[in-house]
Amino acid sequence: MPHWTALVAEKKQRQLKSIPQEWLVTLPPDSTLDVTGFPETCGLLNAREIEITNTSVDILLEKLACGEWTAVDVTTAFSKRAIVAHQLVNCLTEIFVDRALARAAELDDHLKKTGKVVGPLHGLPISLKDQLCIKGLETTMGYVSWIGQYAEKNAVLVDILLECGAVPLVRTNIPQTLMWGETFNNVFGRTTNPHNRSLTSSGSSGGEGALIALKGSPLGVGSDIGGSIRGPSAFCGIYGLRPSYGRVPYCGARNSLEGQDSILSVFGPMTDSVGGIKVFMKAVVEAKPWLKDPLAVRKKWNEDEYNLTDHGSGKDLCFAIMWDDGVVVPHPPIRRSLKMTKAALQKAGHKVVDWKPIKHRLLGEVTRDIWNAASAEDFMITTSVTGEPIIATMELDDVVASSLPQKSGGITAYQLWQVQKLRQNIRKEYLDHWEATASETGTGRPVDAIICPAAPYAATPHGKNCYGYYTMVWNALDYPAAIFPVTTVDPILDGKELTHDFYDEIDKKVYEMYDPEKFKNAPVGLQLVGRTLEEEAVIRMTEIVDAALAAAK
Amino acid sequence: MPHWTALVAEKKQRQLKSIPQEWLVTLPPDSTLDVTGFPETCGLLNAREIEITNTSVDILLEKLACGEWTAVDVTTAFSKRAIVAHQLVNCLTEIFVDRALARAAELDDHLKKTGKVVGPLHGLPISLKDQLCIKGLETTMGYVSWIGQYAEKNAVLVDILLECGAVPLVRTNIPQTLMWGETFNNVFGRTTNPHNRSLTSSGSSGGEGALIALKGSPLGVGSDIGGSIRGPSAFCGIYGLRPSYGRVPYCGARNSLEGQDSILSVFGPMTDSVGGIKVFMKAVVEAKPWLKDPLAVRKKWNEDEYNLTDHGSGKDLCFAIMWDDGVVVPHPPIRRSLKMTKAALQKAGHKVVDWKPIKHRLLGEVTRDIWNAASAEDFMITTSVTGEPIIATMELDDVVASSLPQKSGGITAYQLWQVQKLRQNIRKEYLDHWEATASETGTGRPVDAIICPAAPYAATPHGKNCYGYYTMVWNALDYPAAIFPVTTVDPILDGKELTHDFYDEIDKKVYEMYDPEKFKNAPVGLQLVGRTLEEEAVIRMTEIVDAALAAAK
Repeated sequence: MPHWTALVAEKKQRQLKSIPQEWLVTLPPDSTLDVTGFPETCGLLNAREIEITNTSVDILLEKLACGEWTAVDVTTAFSKRAIVAHQLVNCLTEIFVDRALARAAELDDHLKKTGKVVGPLHGLPISLKDQLCIKGLETTMGYVSWIGQYAEKNAVLVDILLECGAVPLVRTNIPQTLMWGETFNNVFGRTTNPHNRSLTSSGSSGGEGALIALKGSPLGVGSDIGGSIRGPSAFCGIYGLRPSYGRVPYCGARNSLEGQDSILSVFGPMTDSVGGIKVFMKAVVEAKPWLKDPLAVRKKWNEDEYNLTDHGSGKDLCFAIMWDDGVVVPHPPIRRSLKMTKAALQKAGHKVVDWKPIKHRLLGEVTRDIWNAASAEDFMITTSVTGEPIIATMELDDVVASSLPQKSGGITAYQLWQVQKLRQNIRKEYLDHWEATASETGTGRPVDAIICPAAPYAATPHGKNCYGYYTMVWNALDYPAAIFPVTTVDPILDGKELTHDFYDEIDKKVYEMYDPEKFKNAPVGLQLVGRTLEEEAVIRMTEIVDAALAAAK
Repeated sequence: MPHWTALVAEKKQRQLKSIPQEWLVTLPPDSTLDVTGFPETCGLLNAREIEITNTSVDILLEKLACGEWTAVDVTTAFSKRAIVAHQLVNCLTEIFVDRALARAAELDDHLKKTGKVVGPLHGLPISLKDQLCIKGLETTMGYVSWIGQYAEKNAVLVDILLECGAVPLVRTNIPQTLMWGETFNNVFGRTTNPHNRSLTSSGSSGGEGALIALKGSPLGVGSDIGGSIRGPSAFCGIYGLRPSYGRVPYCGARNSLEGQDSILSVFGPMTDSVGGIKVFMKAVVEAKPWLKDPLAVRKKWNEDEYNLTDHGSGKDLCFAIMWDDGVVVPHPPIRRSLKMTKAALQKAGHKVVDWKPIKHRLLGEVTRDIWNAASAEDFMITTSVTGEPIIATMELDDVVASSLPQKSGGITAYQLWQVQKLRQNIRKEYLDHWEATASETGTGRPVDAIICPAAPYAATPHGKNCYGYYTMVWNALDYPAAIFPVTTVDPILDGKELTHDFYDEIDKKVYEMYDPEKFKNAPVGLQLVGRTLEEEAVIRMTEIVDAALAAAK
């Protein structure tokens, strides 16, 4: 077998060839940090293509359904912009423009011949995280060892998206193992943040986050076991939803930590409007994924729940803001965004109370212990095939040098059961804690949703995204959580504050990391968190918050 | 600490004292095998009490709601009959007649004062498997080590049943560890089968099965991780439902193998009519258990699904009969009951095809491997507190002699993940296999439900219930399954057949076990199996099968 670096070189060569050569553009210098404007000025896209790629999902679908824009036109426009995005921030893995255009042409034919759309996503280009197998394509997931493994069939979600009329557009970059909050691997390298390329796009769905922020795709599918949809959505300034376990089918996709049945990774949408999230979730759930994926929950899309029948029909909602999780104090721009959201919601006539977090540190530790019960063995066995190094840190300088596996040596099944038992007990405590807020809201109901940071910071410099509990706790509790953008870091408004009494070392480290100039222009997104399997209500409430923020501007 | 036998003696003494002494009756000799008629002839119950205890759940609820029968009358009648049942087959653990009667009196007061019932189960006595904690009572679960542990709060399901107006009546016997198909432990001893006391009532909800068969309770709650509701229901000639994971709340109950997140134990109803199953499931689901139990699925009771909207409105159903699982060939009475059911369904105008089982042996093995990943350690740690022996077999003669723990030594978390991964792959294969039957049914749909044995035999002699895959596979697949009674073993109709080509040793052992005279009068129940989270449809289809069998008689 060739050395792993030779395998990478060959794969990268093939990736380069998969890019239409006439779409290679003259790039801005590396010192240009904010590249969000570049796709529209680089000259590759014409005015109509710029218009198409600047259009939100619901309008795109309308224009596609009535034939005003063809699927080929739309796919071409997004393909071009995706390729430009890739040249700017290195966000793609598999590129298959011909296949996407052929699919789009079929859809156009169908519409012409029958006058009908294939399904609710007719003609919509969709980008996919590099886990979602497409027949005939490789899914390396950033592992050198998986180069050359071509899928024999589609992941269930890919089949459903095809049934719905979508056009799989490109696949997007991830970190090795998927278990990092940044996007870097030995095969495809690092994805950067288009708002400031010295910052991370987060991870593990960081390729999606960066691509959608550059409007190289109107909608993408990410996955989330600890924040991997929400981190990139928040850091890249877009919308994203982490659904509950089993609401979106996972079957047939590749993954790490396979067989870990306790804290499940889930797929969910990432897009530039909350409307896009609804379109995706409704289409997927109405396709009855439980007939194709044994873990998909038999729960139909419920328009009553979307209309907030369980939340007083949405008339006088009570949101709870969690300012701080009791472990790490958020940076100034995060706190400013929480204040902005509170003011906007109050202006819109809603109640806002404070959320008192309980046991977030323990929940975070338990989550990590469950993952690490056998993660080191999982990573070692996968990488040992080619001897590629296991990445031990996302820092720039010491990545490839380190070939040490993670230190955790794994535990026994009995030890794992004890951690899982502890987690179930905390889930019960948290549920009771939430229910008990009914006495404080004045609505007769418990708090309708929690609003909280997605991280204690906006997008960090590469290698510095070190604290994940703001998202991980909701995975452990299986609460659906949506990300909505609020603002961007402004060094004038978000000056560094005086030191505080640190909760502990990690709090201190995060405090010291903040430098308003370094974080400049980084988007700030927040989370809206609901109850398990309440995706419909979470989407509706996110629309309400989003509208309140827009109205308050 | 006293020797464990002293702890047992003290507990048994307290149990005896908890029985109203005037309800102790003169028992038939041990040689009387069928004791089902005894409660009505023993003289303790008057004619009205006999009438009450012979009434099915839906009629009981009507008479309770209109005040024709008071809750105290109904509770008294069932309490008496439960105590008689206990003297016959040793089916109870905790006995709390005073508490039940006090609760019943409160309900009567409420109805008198308000004219309204407390909830949909107003006044209904309900027996509970010895896992369902009730504040102030012990829950030993048959472990000597748990004697003296008094619950500080109710299990969530107990709270919900109380809200619904039920009257917790008694708690019922189980095997040590819950992981056996018979009912025997070091504290309370063995529960026998009321239809033939030389036979087992099955397990682990064998106390419930025996009690309900003797009409000592109109409805009971069992639990099922591998057949523990369905075995006792089938062996004792009653109805039972194993719901999907999370449809009925489990939180706050005691259990073995805690923290095992993969193949979950579930609670479900056991009763003497399929109507009783519907009443229970509807009441529990409508109480929104997901607001009290973080693992309870947010899925409302769906009357459309009950009316079989996903099954052509029930007009031309297609059932598939699994005659044999490819591992162990069922005994003659089981095959006769399948033939009776097929004929009855065809007579009622439904289609019946054959079910081709796939990978049942592997599914059974995987299920066992997941349980045994840490079961030995779990049992050892629990029993080591008092040194009570771990029961190594349910045979009569060598139980207490054996103090060896199970031989399985436990595996690592990584090994467990690999078994769990294999199981998920088989779940997908099985789902696809079921969906593919759409080409054979002629209804345009896949098979609507599978009908199959609950075991390869009717109730066996004690110590002989050795093969569980007929139920275990549906736990591994998380398919809901209901038990309905069909017939009883008749030595003339069910003569021993000539030997067949054995699948393997266990098949041979089961074949050799059959002796029509030994199994005489044992009830035969079958399973109706549906799709995950399709409880409503499974209940309706069981009603249809039940009615077809009644009409064919």
